[in-house]
Amino acid sequence: ISGKITEVKVRDIRFPTSLEHHGSDAMHGEVDYSAAYVTVETDSNDDIIGCGITFSLGRGNDILVKAIEAIQGLVIGRELSNIYSNFGKFWREITQEGQLRWLGPEKGVVHMAAAGMFNALWDLWGKKAGKPLWKLLADMSPLEVVNLVDFSYITDAITKQEAMDILTRNKTSQKEREDQLLKRGFPAYTTSTAWLGYSDETLVKKCQEALAQGWTKFKMKVGSDIDDDVRRANIIRDQIGYDRDLMMDANQKWDVNEAIEWMKPLVKFRPLWIEEPTSPDDVIGHATIAKALKEHKVGVATGEQCQNRVIFKQLMQTNAVSFVQIDSCRVGSINENIAILLMAAKFNLPVCPHAGGVGLCELVQHIIMFDYLCVSATTDGRVCEYVDHLHEHFVEPVRIKDASYMSPQKPGYSSEMKAESLDNYEFPNGTIWSNLIKEGKFKM
Amino acid sequence: ISGKITEVKVRDIRFPTSLEHHGSDAMHGEVDYSAAYVTVETDSNDDIIGCGITFSLGRGNDILVKAIEAIQGLVIGRELSNIYSNFGKFWREITQEGQLRWLGPEKGVVHMAAAGMFNALWDLWGKKAGKPLWKLLADMSPLEVVNLVDFSYITDAITKQEAMDILTRNKTSQKEREDQLLKRGFPAYTTSTAWLGYSDETLVKKCQEALAQGWTKFKMKVGSDIDDDVRRANIIRDQIGYDRDLMMDANQKWDVNEAIEWMKPLVKFRPLWIEEPTSPDDVIGHATIAKALKEHKVGVATGEQCQNRVIFKQLMQTNAVSFVQIDSCRVGSINENIAILLMAAKFNLPVCPHAGGVGLCELVQHIIMFDYLCVSATTDGRVCEYVDHLHEHFVEPVRIKDASYMSPQKPGYSSEMKAESLDNYEFPNGTIWSNLIKEGKFKM
Repeated sequence: ISGKITEVKVRDIRFPTSLEHHGSDAMHGEVDYSAAYVTVETDSNDDIIGCGITFSLGRGNDILVKAIEAIQGLVIGRELSNIYSNFGKFWREITQEGQLRWLGPEKGVVHMAAAGMFNALWDLWGKKAGKPLWKLLADMSPLEVVNLVDFSYITDAITKQEAMDILTRNKTSQKEREDQLLKRGFPAYTTSTAWLGYSDETLVKKCQEALAQGWTKFKMKVGSDIDDDVRRANIIRDQIGYDRDLMMDANQKWDVNEAIEWMKPLVKFRPLWIEEPTSPDDVIGHATIAKALKEHKVGVATGEQCQNRVIFKQLMQTNAVSFVQIDSCRVGSINENIAILLMAAKFNLPVCPHAGGVGLCELVQHIIMFDYLCVSATTDGRVCEYVDHLHEHFVEPVRIKDASYMSPQKPGYSSEMKAESLDNYEFPNGTIWSNLIKEGKFKM
Repeated sequence: ISGKITEVKVRDIRFPTSLEHHGSDAMHGEVDYSAAYVTVETDSNDDIIGCGITFSLGRGNDILVKAIEAIQGLVIGRELSNIYSNFGKFWREITQEGQLRWLGPEKGVVHMAAAGMFNALWDLWGKKAGKPLWKLLADMSPLEVVNLVDFSYITDAITKQEAMDILTRNKTSQKEREDQLLKRGFPAYTTSTAWLGYSDETLVKKCQEALAQGWTKFKMKVGSDIDDDVRRANIIRDQIGYDRDLMMDANQKWDVNEAIEWMKPLVKFRPLWIEEPTSPDDVIGHATIAKALKEHKVGVATGEQCQNRVIFKQLMQTNAVSFVQIDSCRVGSINENIAILLMAAKFNLPVCPHAGGVGLCELVQHIIMFDYLCVSATTDGRVCEYVDHLHEHFVEPVRIKDASYMSPQKPGYSSEMKAESLDNYEFPNGTIWSNLIKEGKFKM
């Protein structure tokens, strides 16, 4: 792979989803799904541009833009061969930059900015190689995969040799899994049926629509009002029965003991998991909750706001999670997510990605498909979140068939947005926003 | 307290400390101590302006500025009585804002930005009340103090009632401690003697200077090269002997097992603590290291990059720290630091603040003096870091006497910088920076 990076651009793209109360939960009332959109250009004559996003809920999307601009200078001028030949080293160079790391390290805004930048670099690599990302990764040797990862701070949980062993042990059966994947896709569940902001009528209607579409796993939001949660769980179980899976999501609403108490009247609805019961930083708290819920066969799931591999490592070391929810924009892109997949395989835990927002489904499907092909080598107990918003803005939107993600076919990371969408939704001067502001529907 | 906030301004202030290799350690090679400087103005006719800072190492200071600007709108227009009558609630409102919290929550850039804003609001309160902050806090009732704190996510470690009990139990002897404080100040240690960038000659000279000034506790940087660490530890112990305390600081350089191995040849120098042996996010890792070093009577210290009260809580719950190093700009200002002081008291752990950089000494002295007066009620085993840089830029610089911080006397948080310093060091257009850039000594 030849050429040099000549330009990095970042745009502030926001969708006014708050106007329709999509995405509401116990902690995030009105949100505008947004992306800091990164493009990486090279001096090659192939017109290929790497496109990446990092995701936010609206306010503060400009902070992400600013943070990506702060690392531009570390990327522009670099040879692609230099970046991709030791991508794990380059990743560390960016995430451990001596001055910027003070603002993290490896967490929050600066890490999400790194995610946006690396997502674009991954898209570039896939497009240059002419392969969708899941296939690019699946075609790598175990050693090539290991070299993508920065193992610092996790060697007490997994060594490079153990990672090599995990990546090698199922290599001979990979072709069969790839055939399966192309035929059947990767199993998904839907979160679109039960946002907190929906009325009971909407809830019933959404459940029925989802059942008609063949969905078998459903997630509901909980945590604002216990009676309300019980009433809504009743409605949903009435609609979906007990043969299908129900998951519950508290979006960090509770303290540790409160989580245990709140779940007491809810365990009878037999949720597969309670998601984000408390602070995403509270490893010990999650372990306490997991222990208390074990007798009820309710698992603990978390990860969408889990800041990096170091927290994931500890969640696994302490039996604090039963379901590992990776996210494509929270941690440092595919490089760090591979570290998390490898640790999950070591600890024998299923990875069930977080998705939704804008673009999160498009990106994370590649990672979980790679997990199936090369790391966990199974779909048993695995399921990837799906939310049916905003896919129309992508050049290659996700394809769902029989409640499964069908594998993307175009080269790259499925992260490229349509030029028209970018122009319309750029904040605050795109057509959509300037009209909303003019009409007084949005206050700056 | 009456009036309304009419304006919040933020400036990007940087000091070119990298030119002299001050502040170098195993992870941060060349740093420019910087501050996002916040001023809060009201509609009162008293000319009082609240001044706050949040600290960074140079690059990315503009990201902090941007993040503070993102919360400006939540502060401007608010009545002071409304803010200060339930400051804990207002703190939660800002740190849990439904869209911005996605970028944290309560960590990294957005949380450090909140620190800057709340530091300014605290300075404003102190100035309005005509008291230095330590005194403002010390004069509050236990209930008033408890109301400053957001207890969410920590009630499994400390309840409001337990906090009330801690704050009440030593109230009768507070006056005696205040007399002591005014006379003798609060004990300090120096980090200025042993930065990694210093030559052996400089090291000896700095030790001798510090001894002559009466310092009894010294900290050295370790972690770049083991032989170098041994050589430098020898030099320092030769200078200071074994009756004085030596602390070691690895600035997160090691993996967990590496930390335990690296310390083996260093324990013979009898360090009081090893600081930041690994990732600041690794609670379990710190617990493992602490356990391994216990037989050598070497404690583990961490906190300057500990993102919030939730991580501090877990460090205490798992016996992972022996010394709790709070920082005035990393977590959410005094409000969150009080939560940490209260938990440290509950777990019977000494708080030994991190300071240095620019302004960190000026601010954190108030917090540790409050700890002595009202929370831990002792200086036994407590010591506050001191670094002798950049104090000249403050209106009320710290005063060190006999290796102790003397209590500040002017109203406020000692966070106000001189107008001339602000103008000279504003980045990139202040006199100092425009000259450096013109002379080619700094590349944008």
